[in-house]
Amino acid sequence: MRALISVSDKSGVENFAKELVELGYEIISTGGTYNKLKDAGIAVIEANEVTKFPECFEGRVKTLNPYIHGGILHRRDKQSHLDQAKELGVEGIDLVCVNLYPFKATIEKTDDFEEIIENIDIGGPAMVRSAAKNFDSVIIVTDTHDYDLVLENLKNNTNTVEFRRDMMIKAYEHTAAYDSMIANYMNKRFNNGMGEKQFIVGEKVFDTRYGENPHQKGALYEFDKHLSEKFIPVKGEASFNNMGDISGAAKIAANFGDDNAVCIVKHGNPCGFAIKDTLLESYTEALKCDPVSAFGGVVAVNGVVDGELAKKMNEIFLEVVFAADFTEEALEEFSKKKRLKLFKQGTAKLDLANDDFNFKIVDGGFVYQDSDSVGVDEVKNAELKTSREATEQEKKDMEIAVKVAAGTKSNCVVYVKDSVVVAIGMGMTSRVDAAKAALRKAEDMGIDVSGSVLASEAFFPFRDSIDAAAAGVKCVIEPGGSVRDDEVIEAANEHGMALYFTGVRHFLH
Amino acid sequence: MRALISVSDKSGVENFAKELVELGYEIISTGGTYNKLKDAGIAVIEANEVTKFPECFEGRVKTLNPYIHGGILHRRDKQSHLDQAKELGVEGIDLVCVNLYPFKATIEKTDDFEEIIENIDIGGPAMVRSAAKNFDSVIIVTDTHDYDLVLENLKNNTNTVEFRRDMMIKAYEHTAAYDSMIANYMNKRFNNGMGEKQFIVGEKVFDTRYGENPHQKGALYEFDKHLSEKFIPVKGEASFNNMGDISGAAKIAANFGDDNAVCIVKHGNPCGFAIKDTLLESYTEALKCDPVSAFGGVVAVNGVVDGELAKKMNEIFLEVVFAADFTEEALEEFSKKKRLKLFKQGTAKLDLANDDFNFKIVDGGFVYQDSDSVGVDEVKNAELKTSREATEQEKKDMEIAVKVAAGTKSNCVVYVKDSVVVAIGMGMTSRVDAAKAALRKAEDMGIDVSGSVLASEAFFPFRDSIDAAAAGVKCVIEPGGSVRDDEVIEAANEHGMALYFTGVRHFLH
Repeated sequence: MRALISVSDKSGVENFAKELVELGYEIISTGGTYNKLKDAGIAVIEANEVTKFPECFEGRVKTLNPYIHGGILHRRDKQSHLDQAKELGVEGIDLVCVNLYPFKATIEKTDDFEEIIENIDIGGPAMVRSAAKNFDSVIIVTDTHDYDLVLENLKNNTNTVEFRRDMMIKAYEHTAAYDSMIANYMNKRFNNGMGEKQFIVGEKVFDTRYGENPHQKGALYEFDKHLSEKFIPVKGEASFNNMGDISGAAKIAANFGDDNAVCIVKHGNPCGFAIKDTLLESYTEALKCDPVSAFGGVVAVNGVVDGELAKKMNEIFLEVVFAADFTEEALEEFSKKKRLKLFKQGTAKLDLANDDFNFKIVDGGFVYQDSDSVGVDEVKNAELKTSREATEQEKKDMEIAVKVAAGTKSNCVVYVKDSVVVAIGMGMTSRVDAAKAALRKAEDMGIDVSGSVLASEAFFPFRDSIDAAAAGVKCVIEPGGSVRDDEVIEAANEHGMALYFTGVRHFLH
Repeated sequence: MRALISVSDKSGVENFAKELVELGYEIISTGGTYNKLKDAGIAVIEANEVTKFPECFEGRVKTLNPYIHGGILHRRDKQSHLDQAKELGVEGIDLVCVNLYPFKATIEKTDDFEEIIENIDIGGPAMVRSAAKNFDSVIIVTDTHDYDLVLENLKNNTNTVEFRRDMMIKAYEHTAAYDSMIANYMNKRFNNGMGEKQFIVGEKVFDTRYGENPHQKGALYEFDKHLSEKFIPVKGEASFNNMGDISGAAKIAANFGDDNAVCIVKHGNPCGFAIKDTLLESYTEALKCDPVSAFGGVVAVNGVVDGELAKKMNEIFLEVVFAADFTEEALEEFSKKKRLKLFKQGTAKLDLANDDFNFKIVDGGFVYQDSDSVGVDEVKNAELKTSREATEQEKKDMEIAVKVAAGTKSNCVVYVKDSVVVAIGMGMTSRVDAAKAALRKAEDMGIDVSGSVLASEAFFPFRDSIDAAAAGVKCVIEPGGSVRDDEVIEAANEHGMALYFTGVRHFLH
């Protein structure tokens, strides 16, 4: 039996090779791997000896050779193949251990195009794909974490075709991900990120119990390690819908630097948000906006949850708390709630992946775009359109209202007072209906919205929403850009409001 | 100069080779391509002559050979490479024309695993990747549609590095898509469609003018040809947001077989829906529910729009009409509206792609799941929980209400009367708020909801929504499954309503 080993990530390779030798394998190797194994005192054959051809063109051609690929690819279950192998002097290769030079590491460390191109692996993927195709007879190992598993199966006579098939699938996943990364990189570099083909590649974090509904299967996938390093399960298992809500809540809460932001989300939309001096105050105030919706909700906390806050949270049924971290006291307090799920980042403040693209499925395909975010100075630089100017607190409230609105499904309106969302209308087909629904809800809840700031994620097409808000609102911020902007400005002046235009729309669907 | 041609799709290859010969290229080829070119009287060298090694193992190894890959990969700008090539007898290959056996065609025609494995191309992708890596000197052609472009550039001395770089990107897209398809197929076959890696691959249909907002770039991508064959532009250019709305509206309208369904959508949610004897009546009724939201809306029509309907539609500003088709009269009528966009399928009734999976981005990754749809007999088999039973018309209305609710963002409630949506609440964090908002809106609009059927896409957690609806609604359908189902049933009986449980939730976020 012979094993070909040629790895970029050399961790654990000596031990793996050593064990293979003990199991009776001859080892064939190339370049750096060959040297490393030889130095470790392992008997190893240089690939040149097999290929009967020198390594050439500065290593561009090493294993692209019929003695290598024939050795991997010929069928052991066909006498004609075995006869031909013998006749041609092609000896079988029964295990291929190859991992590819991490293209990602190259593009992260350099912009030099020649260096990047040079680092595209050609021989490696060819061997991986050959060995995967012939998984019926060949073990393909592409992950250093699989060495123990492979050895175990070889030792226990459990090197089954099912095992080799799993390794085959992993191998094609490896080459597919590799070329997807190359294609996406090239399109980002030369085609504005919108190439003729777009590859969205996810690595599974976990299967969800089901999908959006119980009759749908579901799973969570991440880009590289963007998610799992920043989303650490503490208690319970996130559902498919939890993930959407957590993402929505966290994106809003993390959007306020070091502030004690707390956001409560239900069905993908915020139903509570506040920034106060302490997280406890923030949560307490956030909850007041809509305690009914908060029931079974998802809370994102931009900071460390302590025992006191946990105790307050335990007063109602929450489904998920996602925080930068939890104190021991908080965890003890939360342990009293069986159904509550906890996730953390292990940081002082929330720090999200914030990938620079996003996408949405449509029938037969998807739309793909750059991410949206509220600019650092967007609110600060908003243009005053009325005679009344915002007070200092109103300016703070505008910042909050705009950022919460950008994280709320369109059409939406957000009313903020003293750094607390006091009313919110979302996800409706008509903006004025969203405005009315928000105000009616506040009225039902006995919440006084007077003195609040109103933000809309897109322009008010008519003056109706301004008129509807006039009773309580003294300051409005919106992108502007309607053909009826003049009417809207006039309405604001009539009601003695301050009105600001940001010039930036934040639709979210 | 030498060109290596080895293609699965042989369309146009003779002419391409012939022209290359005229431009001074020697042609190297293999197997079927070799025979085809030879039969066409083209001077062609068999790959064997270059490789100095026989094609072996039933074609499994043909071009995995240093004379081929060295010929492709050696750098023409380095004397050391040129010297080594000479020394080793490796002659340059300056153009590689390879397209891969369509794995998709194989998996569509057979389930036989051995045949499927045999059809995984190994030599082809290796050559494509080699040639792409050395695009500085080599032209890689992977698309039969590029033959003319290549010839043109060769003839006009415009074979620039930028041109070859574009071809390189296309080549890596080709191999990435190929292996992505293999990996996804294997995971579907052996891992329930939820493999360790998930590949979402889209082919660009068009760049959208911008993304969800003007400061975001955007583009539409499709799976295979799932979208572009069924979405034919007639007038105007779809925006990023249009695509989401069209998809949402079409999925609802297409869900009613041959019925004359019309759905109006704004911001991803329906604001009007009806099924009447004619499409004109359907549209007219659909519009009544919320003509304010319908302004600038997207309409999906399950049928052919005629002149009369077009005239009616022209009475207000619609942004998009997507229909199975349009009559000449309709197109003439619509030509009066400059900003209106039209898209069709060229069919009698809407026929969507209805892919069997979907996904949603979250921070750092995405959630992936099976698609949701309302089962054929789901409403018919719903369980009656009250003493009052639905009338025949109510049963029809239940079918509509459930299907519209399944296409509306959660939390939602849908009120249907005589096959027309008369009120709808959507996308809100609280179900009872959605119910209240819908009824208040209907009241504002002067719409009489009495005698309507109410559907909810998920269970009513409390009796409050039933109580809120009691004034008009006589029949309710919902999944059931709340711990307070008994209270809900009791409320329905108190109000003399019929109440049905489907057992199937249809959350949509």
